[in-house]
Amino acid sequence: MLSQAGCPKTMLSIRDALEAVEGRWKLLILFALSEKPKRFKQLAKDVPGITDKMLSKELKSLEANQLVVREVLDTFPPTVQYSITPHGLSLEKVLDELHFWGLVHRKRIMGS
Amino acid sequence: MLSQAGCPKTMLSIRDALEAVEGRWKLLILFALSEKPKRFKQLAKDVPGITDKMLSKELKSLEANQLVVREVLDTFPPTVQYSITPHGLSLEKVLDELHFWGLVHRKRIMGS
Repeated sequence: MLSQAGCPKTMLSIRDALEAVEGRWKLLILFALSEKPKRFKQLAKDVPGITDKMLSKELKSLEANQLVVREVLDTFPPTVQYSITPHGLSLEKVLDELHFWGLVHRKRIMGS
Repeated sequence: MLSQAGCPKTMLSIRDALEAVEGRWKLLILFALSEKPKRFKQLAKDVPGITDKMLSKELKSLEANQLVVREVLDTFPPTVQYSITPHGLSLEKVLDELHFWGLVHRKRIMGS
């Protein structure tokens, strides 16, 4: 049985978290940025299967939730890079647990 | 820095996990079922905001991923109940970490 199973207040917190990282891409983008700050094109390569349009949309949402910052660098020509914020890095344990669970799930469901 | 930051193999596991619990509803449904097995109508009440159509769709996907079982009980008239599987319960740590992070995130972003 899960701790505080079914408790409405706990459900609210989980819902808040899920709304911030909703969908299949946001946590993967954060994971890719946890390595180092990246430019858009690099990020698009490092998150397999994401389209430019989706990446752009997800980055805006991650910025709004203070999980990612967009910086314009004073280079010639100017370049833009994206970094994970300390608040974004605080999702580390969520990512770790998803990673461990994903390993078990793959074995179980996909048999590989 | 996250452990194994940006590692492609870790990203694959995280992606597998995210595909199984994709969207804003599946984990909330599992959390509601972690309390006890429930009938459809009860579940629809216990997951605030979900529509019957969405609940039905998400339950099918959770069944396909062996996270939930649907049982027809030999009552008159027959009733259907949904239970979380041991594999579904193994998402406990993911839910716990989302719960803790959601609490911090609400304070930070929503200021409440």
